[in-house]
This record gives sequence, structure tokens and C-alpha cells, in this order.
Amino acid sequence: MKSSLTRDIALGLDLGGTLLKCGVVTRSGKLLRTRTQPSLSSESSAVILKNLLHLIEEETLWARQKGYRVLGVGLGVPGILSMQKGIVHRSPHFPSWIDYPIRTHLEKKLKLPFALENDAKIATLGEGWLGAGRSRKNYLMLTLGTGVGGGMMLDGKIWKGDSGFAGEVGHVVIEKAGRPCNCGGKGCLEMYASGTAIAYDIRDLIQRRRIPSAWRKIRKDVENLTPRDLSDLAQAKDVTALKIFESFGKALGAGLASLVNILDTEWIILGGGLLGAWDFFISSTHSSIKNHLYPTTAKKLKIKKALLGNKAGMIGAARALMLKFS
Amino acid sequence: MKSSLTRDIALGLDLGGTLLKCGVVTRSGKLLRTRTQPSLSSESSAVILKNLLHLIEEETLWARQKGYRVLGVGLGVPGILSMQKGIVHRSPHFPSWIDYPIRTHLEKKLKLPFALENDAKIATLGEGWLGAGRSRKNYLMLTLGTGVGGGMMLDGKIWKGDSGFAGEVGHVVIEKAGRPCNCGGKGCLEMYASGTAIAYDIRDLIQRRRIPSAWRKIRKDVENLTPRDLSDLAQAKDVTALKIFESFGKALGAGLASLVNILDTEWIILGGGLLGAWDFFISSTHSSIKNHLYPTTAKKLKIKKALLGNKAGMIGAARALMLKFS
Repeated sequence: MKSSLTRDIALGLDLGGTLLKCGVVTRSGKLLRTRTQPSLSSESSAVILKNLLHLIEEETLWARQKGYRVLGVGLGVPGILSMQKGIVHRSPHFPSWIDYPIRTHLEKKLKLPFALENDAKIATLGEGWLGAGRSRKNYLMLTLGTGVGGGMMLDGKIWKGDSGFAGEVGHVVIEKAGRPCNCGGKGCLEMYASGTAIAYDIRDLIQRRRIPSAWRKIRKDVENLTPRDLSDLAQAKDVTALKIFESFGKALGAGLASLVNILDTEWIILGGGLLGAWDFFISSTHSSIKNHLYPTTAKKLKIKKALLGNKAGMIGAARALMLKFS
Repeated sequence: MKSSLTRDIALGLDLGGTLLKCGVVTRSGKLLRTRTQPSLSSESSAVILKNLLHLIEEETLWARQKGYRVLGVGLGVPGILSMQKGIVHRSPHFPSWIDYPIRTHLEKKLKLPFALENDAKIATLGEGWLGAGRSRKNYLMLTLGTGVGGGMMLDGKIWKGDSGFAGEVGHVVIEKAGRPCNCGGKGCLEMYASGTAIAYDIRDLIQRRRIPSAWRKIRKDVENLTPRDLSDLAQAKDVTALKIFESFGKALGAGLASLVNILDTEWIILGGGLLGAWDFFISSTHSSIKNHLYPTTAKKLKIKKALLGNKAGMIGAARALMLKFS
């Protein structure tokens, strides 16, 4: 039998709009086992909770049968949360959760320590532990997906702010009278550099009757073209698709420049589904940053790809729990 | 004789483009004595240094004669500095200082501990010690003057970033293809909410031949109207002046919203010369913030006036030095 420390594991759960992922993670960061199932996001809160509990119980059982000690459960959820109180105030993908005290519900049944974190923050923790942020005390992470999420590692800790809402980098204003955003604001970064932004661009082209004919060959209902489709088009040197990613990259650069001017972090990690379009936006991101920063600052800046892919959430959620023991 | 702690003082020097101020400050924050003289900013670096040294020596002598123990000297300088190395890389008001090792020069002569800080950061420290940030662990401070400076108190410490350049909040991008800024970028907050922004607005009105006749009564050379003049005009209900401050306030709100979305600090302190126009811009700042933030976040946000006025620099510089002893 190994020493007790090496037999300690945490369950890291990443609850997304579509999938619920669970990883069994050791203290040294080994992902022993993963399970993925539908997250049932459109169901009632009771059904979602039952689904979560069932998976946790099964994985706890598995771990104990293998002789592991289960330290607890870390859970990443998209949306606006109070981490310390364990409440999900609003989550775009879980409409039935409004001011939902998820921790109370889980702890009552589980009798295990529990950590709740925003999805972008667990990804930030995961990348810092085992990915692109390893050995960096300060870095920013942006997840480019349907929206733009973020996390900031400052002096070795995730910065949470007064109410735990820090890191809403998708809502950095880059065009003060620009596109209306779901948050109620205008000109947020998220409206220029995300899946939502690309959908906006496509709708705009439809309205202006500027959809290239090649696009209709991929999908007749062009309004449903995905960022992935657009990335394929860009790969095939489609000029309009390339232009969309160029302005995406430029906007991202303006947002990153603001972040760097505020925080002076030399290391930025980009993750999320839009990473697949990296080659089509990153050079305009770099040139836009260069236009917006002092040369000395721009020269030091490194933009890195996230390394853990869709495992960052599970690993980071487990890490969030383990940090309670360190 | 009082206990030794109460006999400890630090010299706090605030070196501005026009004036050099020196305060003798006790550990408990009492400003015992202040002196103000020209900063000789356009002179050679040797002359500026001599001027500084002379004042420090006189004040040190005064303090010692009164029985105080001089802990050291804190100095606030505008521009881009390496605080730890004690080097002023560039300072807009001191063209003769380029990568200037001010600490080495001062320490050689003084044989006293020395702390160098950016001017906006010493103001932030000062307000946190004795002013509008007292007893707050987290707050942002923006100084609205010729430019927009900033400091961020995070978890009780001024956040400096990887190279000490953090807090360049004047260069948060609020209009990605907007007005060209001195930094080389475009659409920086500083170009919409500062003395420089107001000068830009006035030039714009001159070019469009839209200067109200009332303005020429104040100054024939309208291009030299100061923010103070404009504030007087606004006070007299001049519509154009009021509009300028309204858009100033709106832009400021967009920048503050970005900062709050990133950092989630509920407390913002505004200082600097433009504070005199507070009544003319603050309501549009509030409504702009409301448009850009989630309602729950907007509701918690407090925007406060700086309390220490032009003493913040001296007090904060002394504080910067004292923090080396705590």
C-alpha cells in the first residue's frame, strides 16, 4: 500500500450546458478515470441535482473500492455564483437554477467537503496546476467559446474580487457605443470575439445579402453555420471567413491590451472551443495588441494556447477542492 | 520625550511636472510640515537631482533638530518606472530622465532608505491610509488630470504586476478604432476622460467652427481654454460645455465598468484636478456604468471623491517608505 497522500483523490466535476464530466484526480494531478454524460441542463433543478448526486456516489464508491481516500468534490458551473456561499445565482445554461443553493443540497447528501467555482475559474486553476500556466504566479486565462470567460491568477491565487464576480473579461467594453450584449451593456468584448460574435457577424452578412455562395454549400440554413464551419471555410481560404476571424482577432487584441494595461501580466492563456481557429485570428490579435500597448510591454507579452483541452475543467475542479486542504 | 515610534517620521516627496512637494509625515499620519517649490522639470537631470537633494537635506536637518528619527524618503514620480530597481524609464514631464537610476543617485548622497513609486500609486496609497480608501482592502483609484492615472489596492496591497507597470487604466481601450492616443494606441480612456480629452474636444469644435461665442469672452485664444474654464462655463449652464462633461462622464463610466467587470471591486476613488467638474460628469458616469454592468454589481458600486486633495502624493510617498518597515 502506498503512503496515504498518494491515495488521496478528489472528484472534479465540470458541469456544462451539454455535458457533465467527472474526473477522479490524485493529489499529484493524475487523472485516474473520467466519465461523461448529458448534463440535463433544461430539466428541473431536482432532476439535475439527482443526476449529479448519482454520478458522484458512483465515482466515490469506485474510488473507495480501489482503496483511495476521497477528499471531496469540486464542481465548476457556468454563470454567476457566490463561491463561498455555494449559491448559483444565475447560469445561462441552467434556467431552473436561480439563486440555487447547490452546496447545501449536495453537502446534505454527500457528507464530503465541497468546492464550487465558476467554469472559467476552474479552467484557469487547471491550466495553472498542470497546463499552460504551470510555475507562473501571474497570468490571465480567457476561454473563447459561446461567450468569453476568464480567470486571473494574481500572486498565485485566483482573484475573486469583493463578491466573487471578478474575471468577467467578456464584458470589458471595447466599443463604448457598440453591439448590444446579453448583459445589457454595449460593445462588450464577447460581442466581437466569441461564438456569439461570429453568429452576429453571420446575421449581419445575411441582412446585407453578402453571404458568399460557397457558404450555402456547407449549410443551406446559413444562419446556423458554426464557428467550426467558418474555421473550415477559412482553412479553404474563403475571404469573408478570413475577414471575420481577422476582426475577431483584432477585437480580442484590444480587450487583451486593456487587461494588460490594467494588470501588467506577461502571460495570457487562451482556451475554449474557438482555439481551433487560432491560426486565423492570432496574428491580427498580436498586431492589434502591438497597436494598443507600449512597445516594452508588448514585447514581453506571451499568448499561449491552453494545454488541457476539455480536461481543464475536471482537473481544475479537483484542484479547487484540494486547495482547501493545502 | 515621547516613545521612539511616535518620533519616527518619513519624508514624502511628490515630484510633479510643475511643483515639487515635500511633507514630513509621522507614523500615525500627521503631516507636520510641508514645503513646495518649482520642480524644474525642463532642466537637466543633474539640476533636478540637486534640487531634490537640497530639499531632502534641509527637511532631514529640520526633523533631526526637532528630535525626530528620519526613517527615509519616499518619492512619487509620474511616468514609467521600475520601482524595485529605482529607475525612471520615461516621464512625460521630465524629458531629461531616460532610464534614469534615481535611487542610485539619491542613496549615494543620502544614506537613507528610499522608496520610489509612480505618482498615481502614491496617491492610491495615501487615500488608503488616511483618505477615501481607509479600511478598504480592495479599491481602485483613478486620478483624472492631464491624463488618467491609476492604482489598484487588491487584498490590502498595491497591485504592481509582473514589471511594476500595472494600473495603466488611462489606456484601457473603450473605442477600439477611436481617437489616437500618445501611447501609440487608439481609443484609450485617457482620450475621452481627462484634460487631454477636453483639449481634444475643444480642437474638434474649433475645426468644426462650433465654438460658442460665450467661450471667446473668457479667452480669445479658445484653444487654450482649460478644464477649469470649461467647468466655469458648465456652472453658467453653457450647453456645449455641459455636453463635453456629459460625454466625458459617459466614457469614464465605460472604462470603470470594464475595470469592475475585471476586478469586481465595489469601491472606486476618483481624484485629480478634474474632480472640480464632478457635478457635471458624475451623473452620466453613473448611468453609463449602469448600462454596462449587471444590475447586482452596479448596485453595490460606490464612487467616492478622493479626500486628501493635493496632499495625497506627499502622504502616500511617506507611506510607501514606511511600508518597508512594517
